[in-house]
Amino acid sequence: MKNNEEILALFENYLAQISLPEEPHRLYEPIIYSMSGGGKRIRPALLLLCCDAFGGDVTGALPVAAAIEMFHNFTLLHDDIMDNASVRRGKASVFANWGENVAILSGDAMMIYAYKLLEQAPADKLPRILKIFTDMALQVCEGQQYDMDFETRSKVAVAEYMNMIELKTSVLLAGAASIGAVLGEASEADCRSIYRFAIELGLAFQLQDDMLDSYGTEAELGKKIGGDILEGKKTCLMLHAMSRADEADRETLRHTYCDGSLAEGEKIARVKAVYDKYDVPRTINQQISLRFERALATLDSLEIAPERTEHLRLFARNLVGRKK
Amino acid sequence: MKNNEEILALFENYLAQISLPEEPHRLYEPIIYSMSGGGKRIRPALLLLCCDAFGGDVTGALPVAAAIEMFHNFTLLHDDIMDNASVRRGKASVFANWGENVAILSGDAMMIYAYKLLEQAPADKLPRILKIFTDMALQVCEGQQYDMDFETRSKVAVAEYMNMIELKTSVLLAGAASIGAVLGEASEADCRSIYRFAIELGLAFQLQDDMLDSYGTEAELGKKIGGDILEGKKTCLMLHAMSRADEADRETLRHTYCDGSLAEGEKIARVKAVYDKYDVPRTINQQISLRFERALATLDSLEIAPERTEHLRLFARNLVGRKK
Repeated sequence: MKNNEEILALFENYLAQISLPEEPHRLYEPIIYSMSGGGKRIRPALLLLCCDAFGGDVTGALPVAAAIEMFHNFTLLHDDIMDNASVRRGKASVFANWGENVAILSGDAMMIYAYKLLEQAPADKLPRILKIFTDMALQVCEGQQYDMDFETRSKVAVAEYMNMIELKTSVLLAGAASIGAVLGEASEADCRSIYRFAIELGLAFQLQDDMLDSYGTEAELGKKIGGDILEGKKTCLMLHAMSRADEADRETLRHTYCDGSLAEGEKIARVKAVYDKYDVPRTINQQISLRFERALATLDSLEIAPERTEHLRLFARNLVGRKK
Repeated sequence: MKNNEEILALFENYLAQISLPEEPHRLYEPIIYSMSGGGKRIRPALLLLCCDAFGGDVTGALPVAAAIEMFHNFTLLHDDIMDNASVRRGKASVFANWGENVAILSGDAMMIYAYKLLEQAPADKLPRILKIFTDMALQVCEGQQYDMDFETRSKVAVAEYMNMIELKTSVLLAGAASIGAVLGEASEADCRSIYRFAIELGLAFQLQDDMLDSYGTEAELGKKIGGDILEGKKTCLMLHAMSRADEADRETLRHTYCDGSLAEGEKIARVKAVYDKYDVPRTINQQISLRFERALATLDSLEIAPERTEHLRLFARNLVGRKK
């Protein structure tokens, strides 16, 4: 069995030898730029680790893993247009570099190319993989639409937020994991379990992401702390706090980010003071632990030998930043 | 065997009973709006006529025909953003109605939904249909990129233009036709022939479209004559004329459309005078006839009985507006 580093090395080698057409270069160059822009390759790694855990052929699974990564990068490319985001992974976004029309069209071509990579799945498994992939892709679009809808809504329930991040983040991990399991010829029950494992893991990951943005260190986050607060984003912290705070504190949560008289540091401090007052960080950390433990418990329930899931457990711990 | 009207009635019935999710409604509503916005259903009709010509199961082919129409409507939806077009089929475009972000994302969901419809293809034919569909979709993107590239280029050769319209228009017809043939269990040779039939037909159709815009009647065109000339578009007429004209006439072709001192009617008349001087309409009409005859000749070469292609011939004549 292969560990995460071996899996990633195989994957990068595979990606490097994919040869896209040269022309029209304004269609294909942004795809190469986007795919070689780094990123943690979380989704293809998860797919390959799951395939390997069930004894599948990891090398044969590489094109399908690349399809997942291609789809993920397509969503980032179009999200950057919708969010007007000029930076992606420390480089200019495709949207900033080539303009909107190129970003729309090369994103479209990336999504289609993802399906082209899927063609290389074993023919007997293709119908099932195609269905998992397509359902996953539609749900990711649904999650993105809810995310955009929430920006303009005055009130969003915590449960609505959890549904949104499940669609936007977890479903992609779960699609990757269950396609890996299918490629490893896992039983039906194990495919369902591995799907649930990745859903719970994805929720823990996304909640942790929200936590780090306000309570992490710059070293952990790779950028300044408090960005979500300064943007007035409806994160899980904000929504929990809104549901618990009294009217005066809700007012602080609602308007601090757009108060021109306050320095950035002061804005962040005021909002975090409300979070702390209502014990929001502890609640979120409990949620993260709960989701993480559920994910690991799902691995315990698999029909395969426990040692076969060792690398998956390590992957899960690294993803959520857990020592144990 | 079914004629075009019967095929279209079956198809509209099938489309009407597709039930998309209700939420998030800003994702799915634009898809319903776009799919129910009319259009001539040329591509699904061609797919179903080809399937029927080879004795295939037309009812079973309906989801795949819907996939082709869904993909076509997705391209229109994203093209309207790129072209900043506010009207589509006499109604507000999705882009104009819901804004750019909704148009990007619901377009993405449409493309994915097209693949969802493909899942319903017979499993034994799925790998082949998936490959034809995906290669077609990528080529359509390539055609759109060349089309955008040409807008900012000072010189475009006629051959480059022909390649662009083959990718942007013909390949979609050819993909539809050959998927129909595959569903009808046509021989390999007949699948290739039917592909060539649709490529030639698509070229005749697109050249005719360019001709009508300058030399048609308002009744034929459904809008005012001369739109391409007023936009300074590099149509096949313009490119042929540019390749033949002397420097003074080239100057007229290049700059008349942006000459603020001229009335619209005068602009159209001046450019058409150059087209006529260099016998461009006759050249294009010859090209259309040549492509159309080649398309019909390809039908003659099929291994099936000639009467089985009767409805396809009528479809071809109607598409290119030919009496015989």
